[in-house]
Amino acid sequence: MEQAEIGLIGLGVMGANLALNIAEKGNKIAVFNRTAEVTKKFYAEAGDLQSQIIPCVTLEEFVAAIRPPRPIIIMIKAGDPVDQQMELLKPYLSGGDIMIDAGNANFRDTMRRFDNLNDSDLTFIGMGVSGGEEGARHGPSIMVGGTEDSWKRVEKVLTSISAKFNDEPCVAWLGENGAGHFVKTIHNGIEYADMQMIAEIYGILRDGLGMNASEIGDVFGKWNTGRLNSYLIEISEKVLKATDPISGQPMVDVIVDAAGQKGTGKWSVIEAQNMGVAATAIEAAVSGRVLSSQIVERRAAEKIFGLPQTVPAPKDGMAFLADLESALLAAKIGAYAQGFAVMAAASKEYGWNLPMPVIAKIWRAGCIIRSGFLDEITSAFTKDPDVANLIVTPAFAQMVKETDGALRRVVSYAALSGLPVPALSSALSYFDAYRRSRGTANLIQAQRDFFGAHGFDRLDGVDKHHGPWGSGLATLA
Amino acid sequence: MEQAEIGLIGLGVMGANLALNIAEKGNKIAVFNRTAEVTKKFYAEAGDLQSQIIPCVTLEEFVAAIRPPRPIIIMIKAGDPVDQQMELLKPYLSGGDIMIDAGNANFRDTMRRFDNLNDSDLTFIGMGVSGGEEGARHGPSIMVGGTEDSWKRVEKVLTSISAKFNDEPCVAWLGENGAGHFVKTIHNGIEYADMQMIAEIYGILRDGLGMNASEIGDVFGKWNTGRLNSYLIEISEKVLKATDPISGQPMVDVIVDAAGQKGTGKWSVIEAQNMGVAATAIEAAVSGRVLSSQIVERRAAEKIFGLPQTVPAPKDGMAFLADLESALLAAKIGAYAQGFAVMAAASKEYGWNLPMPVIAKIWRAGCIIRSGFLDEITSAFTKDPDVANLIVTPAFAQMVKETDGALRRVVSYAALSGLPVPALSSALSYFDAYRRSRGTANLIQAQRDFFGAHGFDRLDGVDKHHGPWGSGLATLA
Repeated sequence: MEQAEIGLIGLGVMGANLALNIAEKGNKIAVFNRTAEVTKKFYAEAGDLQSQIIPCVTLEEFVAAIRPPRPIIIMIKAGDPVDQQMELLKPYLSGGDIMIDAGNANFRDTMRRFDNLNDSDLTFIGMGVSGGEEGARHGPSIMVGGTEDSWKRVEKVLTSISAKFNDEPCVAWLGENGAGHFVKTIHNGIEYADMQMIAEIYGILRDGLGMNASEIGDVFGKWNTGRLNSYLIEISEKVLKATDPISGQPMVDVIVDAAGQKGTGKWSVIEAQNMGVAATAIEAAVSGRVLSSQIVERRAAEKIFGLPQTVPAPKDGMAFLADLESALLAAKIGAYAQGFAVMAAASKEYGWNLPMPVIAKIWRAGCIIRSGFLDEITSAFTKDPDVANLIVTPAFAQMVKETDGALRRVVSYAALSGLPVPALSSALSYFDAYRRSRGTANLIQAQRDFFGAHGFDRLDGVDKHHGPWGSGLATLA
Repeated sequence: MEQAEIGLIGLGVMGANLALNIAEKGNKIAVFNRTAEVTKKFYAEAGDLQSQIIPCVTLEEFVAAIRPPRPIIIMIKAGDPVDQQMELLKPYLSGGDIMIDAGNANFRDTMRRFDNLNDSDLTFIGMGVSGGEEGARHGPSIMVGGTEDSWKRVEKVLTSISAKFNDEPCVAWLGENGAGHFVKTIHNGIEYADMQMIAEIYGILRDGLGMNASEIGDVFGKWNTGRLNSYLIEISEKVLKATDPISGQPMVDVIVDAAGQKGTGKWSVIEAQNMGVAATAIEAAVSGRVLSSQIVERRAAEKIFGLPQTVPAPKDGMAFLADLESALLAAKIGAYAQGFAVMAAASKEYGWNLPMPVIAKIWRAGCIIRSGFLDEITSAFTKDPDVANLIVTPAFAQMVKETDGALRRVVSYAALSGLPVPALSSALSYFDAYRRSRGTANLIQAQRDFFGAHGFDRLDGVDKHHGPWGSGLATLA
């Protein structure tokens, strides 16, 4: 029997869809699930693709069915289960075999797993897969971290199953060990920010301008034909126009306003903090979800404070809608700039040499934040891969100049109207702090020197690092 | 010879000041420094206090000079040096001796050090000390974490040296193991936010209203007699009015606008994220410092973007100053509310049972964020120690109602004028999200269900957790 090109463990929805995708693209695949019944059912329902699938009941049989060196995708619940699965698998593996974690792992776990195999003849790939269930089935964006050799072993299969943007595959090897999962984490952090910003604009349309769900859906639908064109704007229209089959109400009006999260947003913020990179829009988005989940507290607080009166929009209706569109674009630039800045710092910190243009490139299709916007980022980073910040690339600087006025008006309006816009205003403050050569931290440095003798530098470069504050501290000056 | 009540290792500025404070309050103290020369010099300069000080050259001699069970304060560079010092010390210690880390340790290190002594007959205290050099010398705020027994051994000495607010000592035992260092970390996180907010207001006065340093000093001086009365506002006036002896310019105008940081702000944000608590104002402050340090990038960005024209203040001069004062108070409430919310979460997470009214109480004097404001927080938490959020206590709800309008106007003005106010706007968004019973995360939940079948809850409680999105996902509904 012809051996499989690749194996896959874990036939949950994501794993099953990925396996079908692999089979459909002409790759022979061996599959295994802890519960054999699941494997059986998966195979039974695979239809025409059965000829490409080798369903296996034991790990021994499964491993034997794969052509060495064996790439084995593990697509199960992140965390301990992955370690356990790896331990179960190891006894059957040999020289050069590659265990591939395709779940949403914390890159620190990936680094550890990679390192733990250092002394063996096995190796490990941490692979970020974005695109949800649809993506897994028909073409996800795939971010690979591991040795270059192991990448070469899987390149053909992964290229065949990945999404394509203008025929270019949305998969790439991004660096050693944790690079793939780190980039996937930041992808998700950006996704959090993007979704939060859309939700804030939705809030202005709903609670500020008093539009209903369908009308707001129309607005997003229109924006999706312009500079905001993206998967998230596209599905915003779709979900806003969907009707709840039970109540007949707009679906979104029946959904509880408490957003769940699974960790990648939080990890993005923590790693940004660890490396000293400002990622305020991502943080605002994570905190936005946190506050959304505190419904009981929020209801109690509204009873105490009521809601403020919104103020009139600063322009007539249509012009303000144009402002909202531009504001969302300006803020989105800030969020993406922050995400890429975090990756640039991590690339140095972990020696990954992350290829920024390639990352933008493989996010153009397949993943949740896919958009034409990412094609523009690809161009900007291709022209200048070592630029300090996305914001200062010529193309994006121009976009910011065209849109920051609108973001100012929208943040101002929301602030006066009591509509929360944490991510939009964070992005604005980020830009305003970033483009100002003379900030206000001189006061902070003076205070720190006053109470803690922390010292400061002088603009004139004179080597005198303490102020004439008097009292006991003067002697330190 | 009479034995010492306590020992202290590390005669740097903070350690020396703490030792002098201890001696001055009538406690006999043994002191040791790695370099004996430093100990000698310290003793020689101790003047009248020599009679209370036992200078020691060897650790053996040092330990023998202290009355068992021996409390030994270690006041050296945080991190590995503390572990090394502890290892050097251990061989000389015996039953019930207490090593006390008084540096700015990460509470996770404190937990580890505490646990590592579990199997020995020694114990450990993690002690947060705030107040800078002046505080250490004349009365700091002291936050103690460790066993209740070890606290009882040091209570008298620490009470004698602590700051006093209306005769009440600013020291308390806050809980087991890492409680003291955790609370100190959050103290510093709040301090970051407080300082950042002051700096943002300073920026509006300087770059928006065109006031010079001395004029701005006058404004802070006036505010210090009102509801903003606090150490940080007091020293803001002082540093703004100080003249650089070299250039004759206002001191602050000569200081580089790049703020340093030592970790506690970052830890505050990371721990808030780990526990899922929104601490956006603290995060904005940490990121503000990060951006302040990117001077080269900022200068390059200003060349590209220039600076925007400020808009006219929304009120006449004096009324706008009143708005700024109220805005700072409103935002400050948000920052403190976030800090206390993080501590409430940690108290549950680590089983510390942190006493919120006591924490507010011991921050009223001695520490960097000391203020009358903290007396009001003490009252609020004393009346309702288990309240969900500081904002909804009657006294603070009233303050927010009186001041949030001003914060709105200030954030709106700054947004339109291109003046960065990340912490002020984060605090406003926090409040606006917190007091709104119907947020916008329903859209986020709809999107997540659309692309990832994550599911949602319904307002009507019906047990149907997926939307009618059509395509492949419809089958999941």
